[in-house]
Amino acid sequence: MSKRRPTLAEVASQAGVSVSTVSKVVNGHLDVSAETRSQIERLLEEHQYRPRRSHARKPVGLIDLVFLDLDSSWAMQILAGAEEVAYEKGFGIVVSAVHDRGRSRPSLRWLDNVHARSSDGVVMVLSELSPDQQARLAALGVPVVVVDPIGDPARDVPAVGTTNWAGGLAATQHLIGLGHTRIATISGPSRVMCSRARVDGYRSAMDAAGLAVPEDYVGHGDFRTPSGHAETHRLMDLDEPPTAIFVGSDLMARGAYEALFERGLRVPHDVSVVGFDDLPEAAWAAPPLTTVRQPLGEMARMATRMLLRLVAGQDPGTRRVELSTELVERASTAPPPGGPGARSPR
Amino acid sequence: MSKRRPTLAEVASQAGVSVSTVSKVVNGHLDVSAETRSQIERLLEEHQYRPRRSHARKPVGLIDLVFLDLDSSWAMQILAGAEEVAYEKGFGIVVSAVHDRGRSRPSLRWLDNVHARSSDGVVMVLSELSPDQQARLAALGVPVVVVDPIGDPARDVPAVGTTNWAGGLAATQHLIGLGHTRIATISGPSRVMCSRARVDGYRSAMDAAGLAVPEDYVGHGDFRTPSGHAETHRLMDLDEPPTAIFVGSDLMARGAYEALFERGLRVPHDVSVVGFDDLPEAAWAAPPLTTVRQPLGEMARMATRMLLRLVAGQDPGTRRVELSTELVERASTAPPPGGPGARSPR
Repeated sequence: MSKRRPTLAEVASQAGVSVSTVSKVVNGHLDVSAETRSQIERLLEEHQYRPRRSHARKPVGLIDLVFLDLDSSWAMQILAGAEEVAYEKGFGIVVSAVHDRGRSRPSLRWLDNVHARSSDGVVMVLSELSPDQQARLAALGVPVVVVDPIGDPARDVPAVGTTNWAGGLAATQHLIGLGHTRIATISGPSRVMCSRARVDGYRSAMDAAGLAVPEDYVGHGDFRTPSGHAETHRLMDLDEPPTAIFVGSDLMARGAYEALFERGLRVPHDVSVVGFDDLPEAAWAAPPLTTVRQPLGEMARMATRMLLRLVAGQDPGTRRVELSTELVERASTAPPPGGPGARSPR
Repeated sequence: MSKRRPTLAEVASQAGVSVSTVSKVVNGHLDVSAETRSQIERLLEEHQYRPRRSHARKPVGLIDLVFLDLDSSWAMQILAGAEEVAYEKGFGIVVSAVHDRGRSRPSLRWLDNVHARSSDGVVMVLSELSPDQQARLAALGVPVVVVDPIGDPARDVPAVGTTNWAGGLAATQHLIGLGHTRIATISGPSRVMCSRARVDGYRSAMDAAGLAVPEDYVGHGDFRTPSGHAETHRLMDLDEPPTAIFVGSDLMARGAYEALFERGLRVPHDVSVVGFDDLPEAAWAAPPLTTVRQPLGEMARMATRMLLRLVAGQDPGTRRVELSTELVERASTAPPPGGPGARSPR
């Protein structure tokens, strides 16, 4: 394989297509068939082709902030953080959503838009992008920084996350400290890395305390309220139901509250609940929710700072940062019924 | 006064300044002294000067969505609505905040940014802009549509509001229907038009039912939680405290909950509370808050559609729309203690 940078003409010749088609792929245009594109992308990768970006390119002063969707107060904290940093530097934040939910095929229009407006860079939030979307984003050749990656960051993409493992550990240790021994967890989808990290933190805390984790004590939802509701009913139907649940999102914790209420069980007197995220809503819940705070605003500020360094052609500093979570103790946790350790898991 | 469009040179000559200075004012540049600018703006207004915008100007595909600040889940619903419409039409939404709060002088940098990126138009949210900011925004010559104007829209600016008066009426009629006679209200600042409209709706409902409104039953906060807390304590300290309060924002209603809790009073058994907005948090409150829903998403969608028509050189349709509020009955309202009408206001 040649070590020098191949010309587009050479790639075109190998792929048996025109130079203009290769150029379209490199520049992220979407009017190329999927088959041709993936063939060209493979060749570009083999040749370690990197788009030639003029370092003298004048920034247009725009950063794209891309969410999967815009339906949560969660997104607002991220937007406020990103906007604050961008504003200081005179950049505008273009907010868009991928508009993928409920569609069978991943949407590509947002990518087209990023390209069309020549944005200087992209902050992706929760980038559960399809491989196809990821490849096209890379092909645009604009700097990308990811906030809270929920999958394995496949490429060398700078990312700002949060200490999910430590958060799961702290939540579980808090419950153990109150005297609970039968502690279950409801996490996000297991294909999502942050869900795994939270469950691993939970398992480590249990293990370190010498507590058993029955396999059916580990449930998985989709971060949304109805899944927390369903999983809580499943847990409470077990022969030995838990006295405490560590729930991997505040929205699912709300579902847990509802399920417990339907069963005539009181939070925290009968069952303790810990959430994850610290949405603004968590403090309004009845009782106010004890939860693991993700520093979303700070994560967005840091990601935006890293992106602006990349846009300016500077080193972003570190490639991967995890900002620490913090347990926020409110009123949804208490010692188990009958006192600490009164009921053992077996 | 001449009826033809004056040239900038004529205005410059009358103002005793250079043409370039007049041009700066017309184009919204900020490096002109306040005194000179206001003199030139007065002359431009006298001559009914309107910036000559090329109808053939190609849209750059960007709309600015400007908030006062980005600290509420309230803003998210507006952003999601605006983004949805913009996305369909291939426009990007640049989100910015005025960053004015806590400053003695109004910030102008966001205006500079709108100008610098040649945005196709601006959706202003809650445009409590200073006269200076308003004048400069007008001078930029880009289409503007306002969501939920809280002041008098001074100029002929298309606006999408909500039926604040009808919302205040419905909230109060709901409380009257439950048998309350001593009903107080905590509204926003009285200089803000939407606060006035809500109070007027409240007064009309009371008047139509033949109920007295003691002057100290009408309080004013600033839409935020601490002001709702303070005003509720003031109301409950009255010789004849109310049995129900119509509160002009959900955040202030949260403050009312806290104050009532501190006094050992239960919602709704001792005091009924109705909010305004229907934030996502309202359904999480304990008890879940009965409130007047503002259709924020729909308001933003309509404002963005109107703006895109203006950008395309079309008529926006109507200049002023009010979308209807809706009373969302949850669990914070009940008949007064002792039963309907048991205690009369005097």
